Amino acid sequence: MPVGTQGTVKGLTIDQVASTGADMILGNTYHLRLRPGHETVARLGGLHAMSGWDGPILTDSGGFQVFSLGSLNQVTEQAATFRSHIDGAIVVLTPEHSIEIQEALGSDVAMVLDHVIALPAPQAEVEDALARSIRWAARCRAASTRSDQALFAIVQGGLDAQLRRQCATELAAMPFEGYAVGGLSVGETPEEMYATAAITTPHLPVDKPRYLMGVGTPRDLIENVARGIDLFDCVMPTRNGRNGLAFTDEGPLKLRNATHREDQRPLMQDCECLACRHSRGYLRHLFNAKEMLGPTLLSHHNLTYYGRLMSEVRTALEQGRFEEYAAGKLRGWGYEPIPLG
Amino acid sequence: MPVGTQGTVKGLTIDQVASTGADMILGNTYHLRLRPGHETVARLGGLHAMSGWDGPILTDSGGFQVFSLGSLNQVTEQAATFRSHIDGAIVVLTPEHSIEIQEALGSDVAMVLDHVIALPAPQAEVEDALARSIRWAARCRAASTRSDQALFAIVQGGLDAQLRRQCATELAAMPFEGYAVGGLSVGETPEEMYATAAITTPHLPVDKPRYLMGVGTPRDLIENVARGIDLFDCVMPTRNGRNGLAFTDEGPLKLRNATHREDQRPLMQDCECLACRHSRGYLRHLFNAKEMLGPTLLSHHNLTYYGRLMSEVRTALEQGRFEEYAAGKLRGWGYEPIPLG
Repeated sequence: MPVGTQGTVKGLTIDQVASTGADMILGNTYHLRLRPGHETVARLGGLHAMSGWDGPILTDSGGFQVFSLGSLNQVTEQAATFRSHIDGAIVVLTPEHSIEIQEALGSDVAMVLDHVIALPAPQAEVEDALARSIRWAARCRAASTRSDQALFAIVQGGLDAQLRRQCATELAAMPFEGYAVGGLSVGETPEEMYATAAITTPHLPVDKPRYLMGVGTPRDLIENVARGIDLFDCVMPTRNGRNGLAFTDEGPLKLRNATHREDQRPLMQDCECLACRHSRGYLRHLFNAKEMLGPTLLSHHNLTYYGRLMSEVRTALEQGRFEEYAAGKLRGWGYEPIPLG
Repeated sequence: MPVGTQGTVKGLTIDQVASTGADMILGNTYHLRLRPGHETVARLGGLHAMSGWDGPILTDSGGFQVFSLGSLNQVTEQAATFRSHIDGAIVVLTPEHSIEIQEALGSDVAMVLDHVIALPAPQAEVEDALARSIRWAARCRAASTRSDQALFAIVQGGLDAQLRRQCATELAAMPFEGYAVGGLSVGETPEEMYATAAITTPHLPVDKPRYLMGVGTPRDLIENVARGIDLFDCVMPTRNGRNGLAFTDEGPLKLRNATHREDQRPLMQDCECLACRHSRGYLRHLFNAKEMLGPTLLSHHNLTYYGRLMSEVRTALEQGRFEEYAAGKLRGWGYEPIPLG
């Protein structure tokens, strides 16, 4: 899922997002609650009508942003209380309020509110936050009233195999339409991330989507699909695109480098994105000259690249040749595939 | 002509520029000479291939930017010498070098280099710069070698009717494919601008394009077409769009205003631009949240608005009802038509 934090995938019109091959996009409850406000979004027809996106939309719960963007951040059993990063206003976010916001936004998939803490932390604190997250998941389930909105639970537990298993098992016993693996891509090594996905997914229902939140590099997608993940979201394609980095089958290209100055080749042959209609030299010029078109074109390329990658992954899985496909891609980027288990 | 200063119309892909109805775009010799350099543009296939624009392109000569952006700015009979606003490098711009740059860029229409001075200025200085501009126009004509590139002369003379007539008459006697009225939209009143266009155009050939440089508001377009102008360029649609201002038949809308917060209406009914697929409330949110999509959508709207205006002007002229059309538009914006002569 391309990330549309504030009701827009940064730098792209909604038609351009669709033309990358994306099926589903993500919106951020925390950001939209603060600006323009979920009630305003509702009065503008909801997130679909407002943005013009008619495919599915997933909204996160705000838990991670309260932790990463807010200040104050007092968490009690009842609620997370934080100060808005925009105007300093105090906001009280309960599981029930998170669901109320997401119902007002009108997303197709809502996420439960979880209690996110900074890691590493004392074992008692980790266990306390985890237990609270499971209670909050139950409160979210109970608060949910829209029959047209799925609700996904979030498995926490850091890098601790025992906690991940316990959390996954408890949540799997509750009635959710899908399950996310949260709390990764926060500074751990790729190997730690892959190992944690591998120990978590076996405890989640195989007939429901398994979603790895906030991940990741093209390599991360391949290695985590190998470990049972179905769905991802990440700002990486668009954020890197805005910073002049383009993903290719030979690894990333930094468009600001002088080597591209008079290079007439596109980023990739046979890529149907908007950037690949132009030369690398032109793209470099756009970044050098700080023109908005550079970020737009590279965001479109990177999302097209990610979308094509996931489409090829699905085809390879259907045709029973995922392992071979994955190894080829990983080696193109300079990595050896990491053996499972 | 939408303005594509650095080889891109700011905020829009080249397909989006075409979809505004624009037939021709402008590029800036001064900017492209400094970055990425005209030789680099040539090695990337020229301005058309680099930007992907296959319609006509006009390049200005750099004279106005030397005056407005450069520092140092020593002008002798031979050349204008200035410091680059990017890296402070000293650049010597002769009429011959301006043509050489424009030939390397590969535009369809090149402009002569003129000697632009700050006004008001002593009469002797004004006359001296004017005489030099005419001599430089002849040098540009002599330096021009591409048979596929038209060359337009530029009439200067400030607000002085006598000087404008003299300059227009002298240039009209020389073999140029078109004529521009320069030195306007630099702080004079609309009435002074219109009066100057009115005294200049009668001295220019009726069978060649007459181009008013750097103009202007929707009102300016209408009033100057009434006075014989065929062609315009201006950053106003895109620059204002980036700043949250949208042109409409009822005058400009400032999208940042709180009044638009929950307004579900598009900017205009029956406008086929990308912005008018969304609500004013959403557009306001994009500007409030500093999202790139706001500038992109409003730039597309404003260029579509300008393009539709000029298209309607052409139709009204062909059908002999320009005066009626112009009066209706002007009154919609809150202006009375200014009588000719």
